[in-house]
Amino acid sequence: MIQTSHKILLGGNWSASSDAQAAFHAWNPATGESLPDSYPVSGTGDINASLAAGKTAAQELEQIDPEVRAGFLDQYAQAIQDDAERLAETASRETGLPLRPRLLEVEIPRTVNQLRQAAHWTREGSWQRATIDTASNIRSHLAPLGGPVIIFGPNNFPFAFNAVSGGDFAAAIAAGNPVIAKAHPAHPETSRLLAKLASDASQEFGLPGATVQMLYHFPNELGMVLVSATETAAVAFTGSRPGGMRLKAAADAAGVPIYLELSSLNPVFVLPGSVRERGSAIASELAGSCNLGGGQFCTKPGLIVLEGGADSAGFISTMRQSFADAPEPVLLMADSASRIKESLEVLTAAGAEILAGGSPGTRAGFRFQPTLLKVSGTTFLKEATALQREAFGPVALLVVADDEKQMPAIASAMDGNLTATVYSDSAGTDDNLYQEITTIVRPRVGRLLNDKVPTGVAVVPSMQHGGPFPATGHPGFTSVGLPASICRFAALQCYDSVRPHRLPKALADANPN
Amino acid sequence: MIQTSHKILLGGNWSASSDAQAAFHAWNPATGESLPDSYPVSGTGDINASLAAGKTAAQELEQIDPEVRAGFLDQYAQAIQDDAERLAETASRETGLPLRPRLLEVEIPRTVNQLRQAAHWTREGSWQRATIDTASNIRSHLAPLGGPVIIFGPNNFPFAFNAVSGGDFAAAIAAGNPVIAKAHPAHPETSRLLAKLASDASQEFGLPGATVQMLYHFPNELGMVLVSATETAAVAFTGSRPGGMRLKAAADAAGVPIYLELSSLNPVFVLPGSVRERGSAIASELAGSCNLGGGQFCTKPGLIVLEGGADSAGFISTMRQSFADAPEPVLLMADSASRIKESLEVLTAAGAEILAGGSPGTRAGFRFQPTLLKVSGTTFLKEATALQREAFGPVALLVVADDEKQMPAIASAMDGNLTATVYSDSAGTDDNLYQEITTIVRPRVGRLLNDKVPTGVAVVPSMQHGGPFPATGHPGFTSVGLPASICRFAALQCYDSVRPHRLPKALADANPN
Repeated sequence: MIQTSHKILLGGNWSASSDAQAAFHAWNPATGESLPDSYPVSGTGDINASLAAGKTAAQELEQIDPEVRAGFLDQYAQAIQDDAERLAETASRETGLPLRPRLLEVEIPRTVNQLRQAAHWTREGSWQRATIDTASNIRSHLAPLGGPVIIFGPNNFPFAFNAVSGGDFAAAIAAGNPVIAKAHPAHPETSRLLAKLASDASQEFGLPGATVQMLYHFPNELGMVLVSATETAAVAFTGSRPGGMRLKAAADAAGVPIYLELSSLNPVFVLPGSVRERGSAIASELAGSCNLGGGQFCTKPGLIVLEGGADSAGFISTMRQSFADAPEPVLLMADSASRIKESLEVLTAAGAEILAGGSPGTRAGFRFQPTLLKVSGTTFLKEATALQREAFGPVALLVVADDEKQMPAIASAMDGNLTATVYSDSAGTDDNLYQEITTIVRPRVGRLLNDKVPTGVAVVPSMQHGGPFPATGHPGFTSVGLPASICRFAALQCYDSVRPHRLPKALADANPN
Repeated sequence: MIQTSHKILLGGNWSASSDAQAAFHAWNPATGESLPDSYPVSGTGDINASLAAGKTAAQELEQIDPEVRAGFLDQYAQAIQDDAERLAETASRETGLPLRPRLLEVEIPRTVNQLRQAAHWTREGSWQRATIDTASNIRSHLAPLGGPVIIFGPNNFPFAFNAVSGGDFAAAIAAGNPVIAKAHPAHPETSRLLAKLASDASQEFGLPGATVQMLYHFPNELGMVLVSATETAAVAFTGSRPGGMRLKAAADAAGVPIYLELSSLNPVFVLPGSVRERGSAIASELAGSCNLGGGQFCTKPGLIVLEGGADSAGFISTMRQSFADAPEPVLLMADSASRIKESLEVLTAAGAEILAGGSPGTRAGFRFQPTLLKVSGTTFLKEATALQREAFGPVALLVVADDEKQMPAIASAMDGNLTATVYSDSAGTDDNLYQEITTIVRPRVGRLLNDKVPTGVAVVPSMQHGGPFPATGHPGFTSVGLPASICRFAALQCYDSVRPHRLPKALADANPN
């Protein structure tokens, strides 16, 4: 039996993996060295045990008052806040992300806030859309799914999108489902500490033991088994497109709803009037957004479209200089640099030219130079698929249109994305072109921005952090922004002439809604 | 070039099929004779033309005031009502369904009502869930998808679920999308008459020509092409499980949202107290529901579970007698009887015994005897998959449990269904068993009923005509009941700091919601 430093969280207990196939270590991206602790790569035994326990917990949870779940979410949020220093230090060690402002001042407060918002909506209940038709005595509302929700967390937000503390977790619990969290193997210790706080809070509130379970890692093929199991009620995945598409195929075939957040290029259109009016300011702002968090944001602007000619020369030169001046960021993974390199090869083979960067970093650790590329609009239109290859890191591609007219054509060649941004001038000379481009782009993105970088994703009810395929799997859902994100993990349940004493409270005649 | 009596509705015009591969005829199920008119089986040319026109119409529709769509829906509803006699006679000839009460008094009024409800919600707009966060200046709402919605209509409701007049059609148009209707080839003339009324009304209101398009038929493999095309925004399919699963695989792989309504057994649990209290009345009521419309309802109770023993003998005997006395219904399709026969072979091979019926009808036309089968609970648990084989027609299976305790186990062996019904006594002696069974069944069905047959599907906002896989593809959506059904065909679109004059009306500061 394989020995590891740490146990998995299964059915309410911290247990040795029953059939670990291997052990793995995390890395310190800032130094490139592996960290000492070891964690199990789970096998079928752990997967099946988590599913069985999750199914039982789902049934038990349905009998428990929403107030208990809300109390748990609040308590867990408080525990994260109280333990923020230790959590942030651990996460910084495993991800290379800076303690300040990123982890301590932005991401942990956001995570705490998300959990508290989830607690609020759990109590408030309007997301259930209780509907009572008195004449027919037919009532319906959104209700828990009856099985565990499997959440795959990404590498880039160790708290706010962590499978055991992030937005999907908060939404699944708010909807009344247990969670089987698949932590990202790049930050196992951060995930372990979070899961400990979650399971302690869960225990304190008397929730079923398997309300929160966590596995660190398993082989890809077991991911397919997990998402297609009969016990599995739904899946949320945030990560790379190939991995997400494999899980999607398995879940789809089994009829399991799967919510994906895959790669996104987040195109930015800088219209000619805005280039003339304030090109240099926009260029600096965009370069900052491209390099934020090492360019490892879901909503990093990866594609910037502008008209060529004399006016744009200054814009391009400012962007190039900003990229050249930006520090080499620490990246999340041991293979981050080689993956970026692969993407650059695809982009340059398709005709893109490197204006700045282009090489792995020179300092220790996982690094890559901030890299700016350029391609003509005509080439982009010829090689639109290759030139929409994502490079997950500090990389952006400038698409320089021959003329204004080519910009809508470029928009038409774009895949589904999370966001699109349009910069236009304040005098309104760009308005016709704006109209033309956004008519094309609007149905292809979840969030449309004006004159603002897309990297901020506010946790407000009106947020849409989603969009058409292939950015996600369904254009009607969001993974950020409560209460909408909760509805992903709910079934529409109808009660037709059900006797009054058997109705859920929210559907009783006395319900004030 | 293949000649046909009738043309397809493409891009606003009635056109000869550009590449019909064959012609087909409808049948008169009451006589078994083919009807004289011929209709084209479309090829790739028609498919591609409909997609291109649908895509353009989608963009044009976004610029048109919702009031225009609402006016169209009202006008179309009125046209159906005004032409009800001719429509019903045509449908009766093609489907064998009786003019009265079914077509003229129930289904056409329901269809007209659905279209009018859709018009109401199109105007009213709350289904769009406009959400404005003033502090962050982020706004969102549900909006059209930006491409055509493909609707596959079933054979069993030539009006209320017709691809060009039914609930999916009404919902897709209400959401602001154009429709490519795939009529069911069992009732092409009914569909043609409806499409004519729809296109006339659409023209009158100045909607884009391709707002409503209709194809009668195409080979199965072209269905896969249609649902996975880049132009296609979403798909709705009501029909058989094998056909639906093929389309689902194609749509899923292309990332196109597909809403399915597949087969459902709609289990009924008749608890022991209710058998003692009013077994005979329940048995008669259930037998009527099983045979309604020739047993060809999506919510026909196909599986009836009760405890064996002396009390249930009378119940079973009443059901047997009711089935034996029920008239041989006319069925919808030439192959209806052979398909039922196939299902009966699966059921009897798995241990079910035929109590009544079991043979194709003796009179002319497409018929099958009302057929009641019985199996023990123990056998059901051993052969749960085979014994959940649907027979689409006047067929029901009684599952006779050894004792009360076996009834929850039987519930546990059941697939996802549209409905489940529980009959219990009025004194409350069944309440514990009710609780036990519904805890299991609740997450496995869309609609839970008490003491009432499931065949009625009221068009009210609280209806859930949906349920977990494999009854449908997603437990969170309904195909009947506005405004919820509209949301299936909408994208969540967010506006982040978009300038006021560029916002959709519903998201402007002045919006009263």
